Amino acid sequence: MPDPASRGLSRRQLLLGGAAAGAGAAAAIGADAVARVVAAPAATPAEVLHGDAVVPFHGRHQAALAVTPQAHATLVALDLLDATDADGLRRMLRILSDDAARLTSGEAALADSEPELALVPARLTVTIGVGPRLVARAGKEVPAWLAPLPAFAIDRLEDAWSGGDLLLEVAADDPLTIAHAQRMLLKGSRSFAAVRWVQSGFRRSRGAERQGTTMRNLFGQVDGTVNPQPGTADFDRLVWIREGWLAGGTSLVVRRIRMDLDRWDRLDRPGREQSVGRTLANGAPLTGSWERDEPDFAALTPIGFPVIPEFSHLRRARSDDTSQRFHRRAFNYDEAPTAGSVSESGMIFTAVQADPLAQFVPIQQRLSDLDLLNEWTTPIGSAVFAILPGCEPGGFVGETLLA
Amino acid sequence: MPDPASRGLSRRQLLLGGAAAGAGAAAAIGADAVARVVAAPAATPAEVLHGDAVVPFHGRHQAALAVTPQAHATLVALDLLDATDADGLRRMLRILSDDAARLTSGEAALADSEPELALVPARLTVTIGVGPRLVARAGKEVPAWLAPLPAFAIDRLEDAWSGGDLLLEVAADDPLTIAHAQRMLLKGSRSFAAVRWVQSGFRRSRGAERQGTTMRNLFGQVDGTVNPQPGTADFDRLVWIREGWLAGGTSLVVRRIRMDLDRWDRLDRPGREQSVGRTLANGAPLTGSWERDEPDFAALTPIGFPVIPEFSHLRRARSDDTSQRFHRRAFNYDEAPTAGSVSESGMIFTAVQADPLAQFVPIQQRLSDLDLLNEWTTPIGSAVFAILPGCEPGGFVGETLLA
Ligand code: HEM
Ligand code: HEM
Repeated sequence: MPDPASRGLSRRQLLLGGAAAGAGAAAAIGADAVARVVAAPAATPAEVLHGDAVVPFHGRHQAALAVTPQAHATLVALDLLDATDADGLRRMLRILSDDAARLTSGEAALADSEPELALVPARLTVTIGVGPRLVARAGKEVPAWLAPLPAFAIDRLEDAWSGGDLLLEVAADDPLTIAHAQRMLLKGSRSFAAVRWVQSGFRRSRGAERQGTTMRNLFGQVDGTVNPQPGTADFDRLVWIREGWLAGGTSLVVRRIRMDLDRWDRLDRPGREQSVGRTLANGAPLTGSWERDEPDFAALTPIGFPVIPEFSHLRRARSDDTSQRFHRRAFNYDEAPTAGSVSESGMIFTAVQADPLAQFVPIQQRLSDLDLLNEWTTPIGSAVFAILPGCEPGGFVGETLLA
Repeated sequence: MPDPASRGLSRRQLLLGGAAAGAGAAAAIGADAVARVVAAPAATPAEVLHGDAVVPFHGRHQAALAVTPQAHATLVALDLLDATDADGLRRMLRILSDDAARLTSGEAALADSEPELALVPARLTVTIGVGPRLVARAGKEVPAWLAPLPAFAIDRLEDAWSGGDLLLEVAADDPLTIAHAQRMLLKGSRSFAAVRWVQSGFRRSRGAERQGTTMRNLFGQVDGTVNPQPGTADFDRLVWIREGWLAGGTSLVVRRIRMDLDRWDRLDRPGREQSVGRTLANGAPLTGSWERDEPDFAALTPIGFPVIPEFSHLRRARSDDTSQRFHRRAFNYDEAPTAGSVSESGMIFTAVQADPLAQFVPIQQRLSDLDLLNEWTTPIGSAVFAILPGCEPGGFVGETLLA
């Protein structure tokens, strides 16, 4: 199979008007859809600020984790149809991989019904994850951690936001790109799996703030400061699985967490800042001045209390055991308010780690036991997926699972 | 009242770090929230591409209609509480206007609970519209056109997407900016009105394509080519009301139109192009080569049929009476697919005109009578609002209604 990315480029150039095929359109009706493109006057590339940015699909790891999170992400969980056996899985994962390789490079999917919508990749990534039932159907042993998380006292989980056999995370800096890619992927998988839930989230749009600004969540907090960064040895050690069919893969914990903005608003700023242990203005620890300052947990107020309270999220989310860490990637959600309220908001919290039981669960347990933030936040959805290793051109995501 | 925009600037500069107030944050806990901002290293302005773009709130007309539609828009319809009398309306509209003036200039709202989220205006606009019940409560005569549209044979309207006493259209190039502004406005109005429906839509993100590119809808069509443009005499004549308390205002028809992507996908490209009368590749009329070419409705195919079919959307949407025109502003929507399907998509179609009965209804009637596009589209929501005139600093949107 030729490299879709290289084929894609020429096709894109054609569609974007590199070669003007200005035939009379009326006469051409019925000719091949792509060949009879009538080109618009060539775009001045400098004017397109980010729509043509491509995140390469192929590689040892799936690509999304290596990039700064995009402005928009939609997570779709699917349940396998009963008839989908190992052979069906192979066909489905081949189709998904092929579509994803094309779409992420700004090229139309194979049976793309709206090829023009595919031309703005905008850093599109498609990440494929699998749940325990899918792994079992593929005939592989299910890792101990690939199961629902243990129940936490703070959980108020709803089925509508939990579980799933297959995860497709579609992320990009453009919402139309996501809508199109999502539809193509769901069309490709519809003979094998049915949608279970869909969660859409957002961060600041591309270019709205200077690059490298830590995102803010809907509580107004700077969120994501202390977080192992892709490209570092620390990240690689914490995130990638090194052995077996998942080598080069990882795991993704998805928690849908409601944030009660109304109750939060009743708290004053000092109270809010103490609940996390950081300032709202710039996210500095309460013992420092800058976002990246190291918190001083030993510092005491004049009357002898810790400046960063014991019950603060910052204190509780950090264990003394440095192996209990993971990479966080969060997206805000904001749905239509339900009767009588003025918001229905929260966070699609995702955590990436080689082993959820060793890395994620102890921290979530600590937070469930004690964390002032729990007053205003409620986990309402939970799922764990194995993020498959990446693939090279000609291969497909899932080939080691089905080997 | 001082000009909020000018006050806003200095406050923004402070919050964005123009003056670094690097006091030890721990010692400062409890001090005034804004004064103790600890500044981040100054942003390099060149790196912020569009987040600080401001659309001035004040003026003869409300501002949104004068700008290229933003990437995101949320339309919120509210119903008045029974207790809200003319006096309550005045208070509500003053609060909404004041919050809108501040937020659109990148400044926190008066009682802003998350002031840091207000600092990225990203061309935020807030447009305030009113329904018939609100006008009646204000004691003014309700214009004949400010009523539900006549029933059309194609309609399958749902209450959940129809009607409303008050419209807030919140639009910006950034989704977090919208979420924050929407919440502030709903907090400001919650003592007077309750949310009836919320519709969120999107176009391409800012900078994804070169500016001036006509948007595409989820059918993949170039949508918005023939459309009176703000800043032209034609637009002014078609859009602005010239007399009475609505002078400087206009009307907004909101139609929520489901687009059946699955059925659309079963149609071949020639069929799709004939249903509209334009090519999918670049939106050229079937009798031309370029998007802006004038369609030739008289042109015939070799076997004697019109090249642009009689039943095409293009032919039907254009009346010989050139007063039957309006300004279209559409946003795509894409919701979680419902059981068994792979999409739940469509368009938040809005039309702006001085008189819906004279301008919009005849065209909608023509389209209801015959339009091949009806095969794949279904209106499921409908509402008509009077868009109030703009206001000057010190005034409020609605002052002529309540005069
Ligand atoms: C809606 C719920 C949540 C909110 C609003 C929230 C907010 C925050 C904020 C503001 C910070 C400080 C800035 C930063 O370093 O990112 C933070 C840090 C952190 N949070 Fe959360 N968080 C939430 C849920 C969670 C959950 C569920 C976990 C894991 C189970 C978690 C784990 C962490 C960790 C590990 C840190 C870094 C702590 C350190 O400095 O070592 N958070 N969170
Ligand atoms: C989901 C439903 C709809 C779709 C997909 C759609 C699509 C289109 C497309 C592709 C065009 C051609 C390009 C352009 O000039 O913008 C067009 C033109 C137009 N549409 Fe629609 N449209 C829809 C609903 C409506 C409705 C409800 C109305 C008014 C009642 C309307 C009025 C018009 C008008 C006035 C034009 C310009 C015609 C001319 O060239 O003079 N459309 N539409």
